[in-house]
Amino acid sequence: MGLFNSCGVVYKPAKDVDLSPTSSEFYLKANVKAPRMIGVVVKIFAWVLEMRILGKLLLYVLKANNLIYKLIGDAEIEESPVFCPSHPVEEKESEEVKHIDFDLSETEQVQEAVSCLPTWSEREVNCLNPSFHRWTIMDYARAYHSKKTTPLTVAERFVAAVSESSKPPFNMSFFINYDVEDIMKQAAESTKRYELGRPLSVLDGVPIAVKDEIDCLPYPTTGGTSWLHKLRPCTGDASCVKYLRLCGALIVGKTNMHELGIGTSGINPHHGSTRNPYNSSRICGGSSSGSAAVVAAGLCPAALGVDGGGSVRIPASLCGVVGLKPTFGRVPHSGVLPLNWTVGMVGILAGTIEDAFIVYAAISSKLPSHQNTALPKLCFPLLNSSRPISSITLAKYGEWFNDCSDDIRVCCSNALDKLQKHHGWKSVEVTIPEIEVMRLAHYSTIASECSTSLSSYLEKLDSSQLGWDARVALAVYGSFSSKEYIKAQKIRNRQMYFHRKILAHADVIVSPTTGVTAYPILNAALKTGELDYINGGGLSARWHICRVFKEILEPFYPLPEMARSVSMDAFLTEL
Amino acid sequence: MGLFNSCGVVYKPAKDVDLSPTSSEFYLKANVKAPRMIGVVVKIFAWVLEMRILGKLLLYVLKANNLIYKLIGDAEIEESPVFCPSHPVEEKESEEVKHIDFDLSETEQVQEAVSCLPTWSEREVNCLNPSFHRWTIMDYARAYHSKKTTPLTVAERFVAAVSESSKPPFNMSFFINYDVEDIMKQAAESTKRYELGRPLSVLDGVPIAVKDEIDCLPYPTTGGTSWLHKLRPCTGDASCVKYLRLCGALIVGKTNMHELGIGTSGINPHHGSTRNPYNSSRICGGSSSGSAAVVAAGLCPAALGVDGGGSVRIPASLCGVVGLKPTFGRVPHSGVLPLNWTVGMVGILAGTIEDAFIVYAAISSKLPSHQNTALPKLCFPLLNSSRPISSITLAKYGEWFNDCSDDIRVCCSNALDKLQKHHGWKSVEVTIPEIEVMRLAHYSTIASECSTSLSSYLEKLDSSQLGWDARVALAVYGSFSSKEYIKAQKIRNRQMYFHRKILAHADVIVSPTTGVTAYPILNAALKTGELDYINGGGLSARWHICRVFKEILEPFYPLPEMARSVSMDAFLTEL
Repeated sequence: MGLFNSCGVVYKPAKDVDLSPTSSEFYLKANVKAPRMIGVVVKIFAWVLEMRILGKLLLYVLKANNLIYKLIGDAEIEESPVFCPSHPVEEKESEEVKHIDFDLSETEQVQEAVSCLPTWSEREVNCLNPSFHRWTIMDYARAYHSKKTTPLTVAERFVAAVSESSKPPFNMSFFINYDVEDIMKQAAESTKRYELGRPLSVLDGVPIAVKDEIDCLPYPTTGGTSWLHKLRPCTGDASCVKYLRLCGALIVGKTNMHELGIGTSGINPHHGSTRNPYNSSRICGGSSSGSAAVVAAGLCPAALGVDGGGSVRIPASLCGVVGLKPTFGRVPHSGVLPLNWTVGMVGILAGTIEDAFIVYAAISSKLPSHQNTALPKLCFPLLNSSRPISSITLAKYGEWFNDCSDDIRVCCSNALDKLQKHHGWKSVEVTIPEIEVMRLAHYSTIASECSTSLSSYLEKLDSSQLGWDARVALAVYGSFSSKEYIKAQKIRNRQMYFHRKILAHADVIVSPTTGVTAYPILNAALKTGELDYINGGGLSARWHICRVFKEILEPFYPLPEMARSVSMDAFLTEL
Repeated sequence: MGLFNSCGVVYKPAKDVDLSPTSSEFYLKANVKAPRMIGVVVKIFAWVLEMRILGKLLLYVLKANNLIYKLIGDAEIEESPVFCPSHPVEEKESEEVKHIDFDLSETEQVQEAVSCLPTWSEREVNCLNPSFHRWTIMDYARAYHSKKTTPLTVAERFVAAVSESSKPPFNMSFFINYDVEDIMKQAAESTKRYELGRPLSVLDGVPIAVKDEIDCLPYPTTGGTSWLHKLRPCTGDASCVKYLRLCGALIVGKTNMHELGIGTSGINPHHGSTRNPYNSSRICGGSSSGSAAVVAAGLCPAALGVDGGGSVRIPASLCGVVGLKPTFGRVPHSGVLPLNWTVGMVGILAGTIEDAFIVYAAISSKLPSHQNTALPKLCFPLLNSSRPISSITLAKYGEWFNDCSDDIRVCCSNALDKLQKHHGWKSVEVTIPEIEVMRLAHYSTIASECSTSLSSYLEKLDSSQLGWDARVALAVYGSFSSKEYIKAQKIRNRQMYFHRKILAHADVIVSPTTGVTAYPILNAALKTGELDYINGGGLSARWHICRVFKEILEPFYPLPEMARSVSMDAFLTEL
């Protein structure tokens, strides 16, 4: 990391930092200094933070205790700031991937993705599961084609299941809004297309849910609040939703989320707290809580989420499904609540890697959505090849990999062993420096951008319309100076450099997705929300970075929050 | 612009803003609320600003009076922020420009530029000037080739002239450092190359000065301070200096500048105040003061400057020479003091447009220097064509064009008339909205970035080592929140949109470069510097944007400061 001067850290130039396993860089454990609070304590805390002078003082102490000044604001960082996380373009030829031309339509892109998957007979073998069985996208497509069922029948059953799950004793709170009439209308149209033998793609008639942070007619976009849709009416579909519709997908409603996406428990005082389908007394993680839960519950093979700091990956992990945060700029962001600009991305939750890819193919824009990014051609791994995928190198930072609860460590180590044994993939030890610094830099970034994006709404708002935990978060979010924000972007530049160097010799960086498993929902938290920065930031900050597709997926941001590690197994073993 | 809500402006979506001359958008004159201060008043002001509580209060009042909150911090802006000012790439074929291949060397690029210029005999006619006569780069090259003189002779005369200008009665303070031995050594090597008939390019042996913000051996890089070079030793040449050396240029020393580039008068308490060669009792503008003055005085045909908010264009204007701020990312920034990251660019001061182009060809990188920019091929207009350049459309915003002193208005209007009469270029009226908002957004941006970049040095520094006006500026610079910074980037996005729309129907946006002419240097200001935000920001904020070369030169930032308008004539009439 570097020396401390009188005030802050003096970072070594990034190019001089040793990334080998024997590096002298130390692993700074997250040492979150904030008590776990629920109920009336949260309320008092919010009140004080919102006070003019006392609030500023308390914020100063909080930020100082949590090393924001030492590691970010007062630090010396040689690197220039990076505001848009785009990596240098690198188009390598490889026989193991298929490059997707820029001028294909959404449905053609989906077709290309499907052509890379193992052929159907192979899949069927894997699907023989005696117990609960989630349908994959191809299961739907095949059943529709063979007239075993129709989109109309599926829609009817879907509506019944959601209705049942919303009531006691389940109270799952999967959706904020779903419109039975709209669903049945789409299903009828899809059914007709199958009858005419003209489905639009394998996604035709497949139920897909959309996080309530993404514009999607005929629904309002609440962002998990009770007021945002009144100030910002939804006037059309987001681009990613448009693309799904072009492929015939059956959009089944708007999933529940942590209020404004600024928490990761999925506990929402306005729309009910989404519960984990594996154990409804526990959280399912957030902020894309409902999207993860509906996939885990088998209601949809895939759902859209939005991930700024783990909001897709955390709930995916806690619900044991696949979570994908794509490369910055790959999926168009228009029509998504602009809660931040440089870290949030539309992501995918799915039951299998294959389904994540099919949806990814549908929603990826042919041209990069962001004017400042220059992305290489989209490409997919050839999973249907007769030869096994050649040796993949997994980079692992032991200190970080192991900084999680015992059950997770054991589970993830076993997964790595399997990969080595069954596929011959090798694992190399590396050092990823400044992980805790990066977590704070991420926090400073998303906090600054989120409070800026919401500032004009918040001015008009009676703060009693916000949940208590959101009030606390917003008070902290609004406290950053431009210096802290810009220095956080310098830290980002360093991390991108470290990651580029590590990925020059490895294909994937592996770690558990989260450091703890889903924790119980406390009753007192249901109304006030809860502040649990220890269980949250304290225990984990994880991500996988995968460049198997010659593109960096989930560029460089840590998950600032908790969870259980299933998604790694899913992500890697199914690759 | 938009409506005011209780706190700030609510901006209309950029796409709904009318840019026609009959637009209802009003022109908000800069209404700078800060008194002109010199001497002891500056000192007191700096002391108060540096106080903990009183300083914060005063800053709040200052920023509120100057509409920073209303127009930026508390405003509602729909557009997302843009952190890197890159425009969408657009490569149009045209018979009037020559595209420069990416794989040419610096000297080959210079050769290409020269091949686009009028042939020599034509130039010579224009050079017949009975009075003071500045040598162009081609004058030097021709004189060296024909052995009329040698680089050694030129170097000797240069050194003598600089030495004379430094002493009373002139006290011009052109340079912070120049090393006679180093100059003579370079000149001897260049002379030898000519003797062997192997000059490196037309720049071989041509004296070029470098602003003391750019690393250049054997000199320290002071940034106009008395201390920065001690904390940040210069260890090599900046890329742009390297490129000039590869072309054989004779680097003649480090020019004077406004302290840290954070002012535009060129009054420097540490290295003497650069004086205007046209009238040494007046300022020459800044911050690239010395670079403009040496060109105006005829000591060098061209010099390098750095422009963040007019630091090349303002002194060029006040000294009656050409000032060019190139497109973001076109000239590599490595080895330049990182005083900011998104607005500063290496620029060129030159006696003629042709010379600016030759130097531009030498220092432009073949590949964009910034990872986030994707620039089209460099190209030059074919000025040697037998046909005149086809009709150019000039866009003019009358309100803004005319918001300057009478002498400037008359001079610039005459220039436009000439262009219309002699070249048949046409002029169209447009509305450029939110010019004053943009000036404030620029101020918030450069202030935040500059104070962040300097923060680690300033911590270690006894503030008495800073000039008084720099102390005041830095106190204000450090006061911005992340919200203000990010909203300023949203304003930037709007302006880029407006400019793209205007440039869809015009080739150049014209206006006087500055709104006032060079004002007298007051004696009391020589030691304390002066605060003259009225004469500065108040009277002008100008720029030209030129896309004759199918690329946007000087993208979108206003000059926040004063001056005399010669550069427009030079820029346009010589084009």
